[in-house]
Amino acid sequence: MDYVNEAWRLLVELRGRTPRVHCITNDAAQAFTADILLAAGAIPSLSLAENEIEAFVGSSDALLINLGTLDERRLAAVERCVPMMREAGKPWVLDPVFVERSKPRLMLATTLLTQEPTAIRGNRAECAALADAAPVFSAFLSEHASSVVAMTGEIDVVFGGAQPVSISNGHSYMAQATAIGCALSALVAAFLVTGAEAPVAVASAVLVWGVAGEIAGAKAGGPGTFRPLLIDALHGFDEETLKAHARIEKGAQ
Amino acid sequence: MDYVNEAWRLLVELRGRTPRVHCITNDAAQAFTADILLAAGAIPSLSLAENEIEAFVGSSDALLINLGTLDERRLAAVERCVPMMREAGKPWVLDPVFVERSKPRLMLATTLLTQEPTAIRGNRAECAALADAAPVFSAFLSEHASSVVAMTGEIDVVFGGAQPVSISNGHSYMAQATAIGCALSALVAAFLVTGAEAPVAVASAVLVWGVAGEIAGAKAGGPGTFRPLLIDALHGFDEETLKAHARIEKGAQ
Amino acid sequence: MDYVNEAWRLLVELRGRTPRVHCITNDAAQAFTADILLAAGAIPSLSLAENEIEAFVGSSDALLINLGTLDERRLAAVERCVPMMREAGKPWVLDPVFVERSKPRLMLATTLLTQEPTAIRGNRAECAALADAAPVFSAFLSEHASSVVAMTGEIDVVFGGAQPVSISNGHSYMAQATAIGCALSALVAAFLVTGAEAPVAVASAVLVWGVAGEIAGAKAGGPGTFRPLLIDALHGFDEETLKAHARIEKGAQ
Repeated sequence: MDYVNEAWRLLVELRGRTPRVHCITNDAAQAFTADILLAAGAIPSLSLAENEIEAFVGSSDALLINLGTLDERRLAAVERCVPMMREAGKPWVLDPVFVERSKPRLMLATTLLTQEPTAIRGNRAECAALADAAPVFSAFLSEHASSVVAMTGEIDVVFGGAQPVSISNGHSYMAQATAIGCALSALVAAFLVTGAEAPVAVASAVLVWGVAGEIAGAKAGGPGTFRPLLIDALHGFDEETLKAHARIEKGAQ
Repeated sequence: MDYVNEAWRLLVELRGRTPRVHCITNDAAQAFTADILLAAGAIPSLSLAENEIEAFVGSSDALLINLGTLDERRLAAVERCVPMMREAGKPWVLDPVFVERSKPRLMLATTLLTQEPTAIRGNRAECAALADAAPVFSAFLSEHASSVVAMTGEIDVVFGGAQPVSISNGHSYMAQATAIGCALSALVAAFLVTGAEAPVAVASAVLVWGVAGEIAGAKAGGPGTFRPLLIDALHGFDEETLKAHARIEKGAQ
Repeated sequence: MDYVNEAWRLLVELRGRTPRVHCITNDAAQAFTADILLAAGAIPSLSLAENEIEAFVGSSDALLINLGTLDERRLAAVERCVPMMREAGKPWVLDPVFVERSKPRLMLATTLLTQEPTAIRGNRAECAALADAAPVFSAFLSEHASSVVAMTGEIDVVFGGAQPVSISNGHSYMAQATAIGCALSALVAAFLVTGAEAPVAVASAVLVWGVAGEIAGAKAGGPGTFRPLLIDALHGFDEETLKAHARIEKGAQ
């Protein structure tokens, strides 16, 4: 698998398709997540209203579930929308924000794992908490699992294909600004719409994100200016940049 | 009507008055909308709480109703605040976000049309959905209608005066970043506080917005850096810039 | 008291400790407040969910209560979390946003004053409304009061130590962008975690914020680009910058 060429091919396809991605995500991440989806070529929607979420999710190509704000509206929305995506055979992504700090959130995440999300994107602490709480999560970290896992950190590892894949792109500012991981999870959902094999689609999203982060980080004066520059980098992303910067290899680092 | 001179005169008046604009708007647009109002010289408020929204709306000079997040709090707030504005003879603006994707939202919008909003600001898809669902909307697109309509897109058209007016300013990034249209709707509300005839006030807001977008777009490296630069452009907006860039003419393009 | 050296010492300590600061704050301020805490070296959390806020607040080192969005979730969260902080002897900060425009909000703020917040951060209009409504607030403006008050404006005054302290740093853009004061209140909470005497910790936060604002303001083209530059300035804050710019003196200006 030539991941770099594949990532470029999928980004081109994503831009051509302008898929709709519905996001059930936390308050602080909503605006940035929507901007990232637009910059990637997707169309975001964020509605949580009981009487219209089915219309939005039903006409969406992918769904993001981010557990960062767990109010009743969102809990109800999650319960309704996951079966819709599964029945329609459409991809959905779970982002288990901060599950290591809240039992009820961890319990919800483990329940959702049994629904086999197309992909799960979390940092090391979140993934460790899931592995402790849900044996099924550890099974996801093996070959040909039902869910792909992207565990992000200084080095990002994507599990679920014949072998794990490690990506060492990115920038330190990505851990120093809010909602960066949340937005990556939305980007993963958008890449899954391409219909590529899930491990490849997820690795492609993580790779593009890491390279965009590097480009933005090199121009930024800190984590504040990094945010708008990251949107710009994703919007203007081109093949040369990807090929010059990509650091992806087989195996878990 | 010399729209360019009039737009400048109204912006100067707006800056001198520092009107209060209350915004019932969607989660993802709140912070940016507030920043745009501040940059224009207005004072935003965003409260939705049942026990205090009347105090905020009662002491406001204009109201924005954006349908982008339709939860119970906002539905209750809309029901309470529209009559307050109508009784007080104060301007209110309807932004029918994404009505083409949700029936309940479209129904609410058509009901609100019967309350004769001072102005409606929507994109072509939203306006088309309204025209299909509510015959009264088409009537608004004619001379001396009770509500002014600003239909935005590559060319913006303002209906409601003796003739429609077309504005061809703006920048492609305006369609590639979240909440840009939402913020324009708030700016329209602020311009209406000047007491100018509604079609002129609305066209002035749309013109100033389009020119500010052009200035920001020329400096931006993408839709990410465009956003803060748009706030700067509106804040530092001057007469020379307006006169050098304004492209406004009679007739619907 | 050498406030400048002390402010630097506390910032260094804060960066080393990476304290957790839980924020009950308004919708429009959430993302920026989180970014500011991260830039200062703290870890923000924002959850309001009934079944998990105790877990978040219980494992936090400080709490911010900002009254800018007063929905039922937040009212319930405030009622539950203030006693938790008081029993644990941990600092909490009250930001009485816009109390001058809403009676119910003013009443809640005066009730909270009787719980003796570690610090209160408000602008002059907010502080004036509190002083009118609650005699106890005026007592806070005297020596060795139970709560420290930071009254911000063109000149910021911190009350509660042996003498008030005045800080005349800052930039006009700070009043022209949303949530700047809200974010300062969160920074005050983070500085209080250092365990320094409250008046010193609060004055240090206000001083660092004002100097960061000056650095950012000098580079910004308006209140839009000011926001990301302010995050950068706080993130890259160093001793030389502080010493070169600090304008702090005893007495209320």
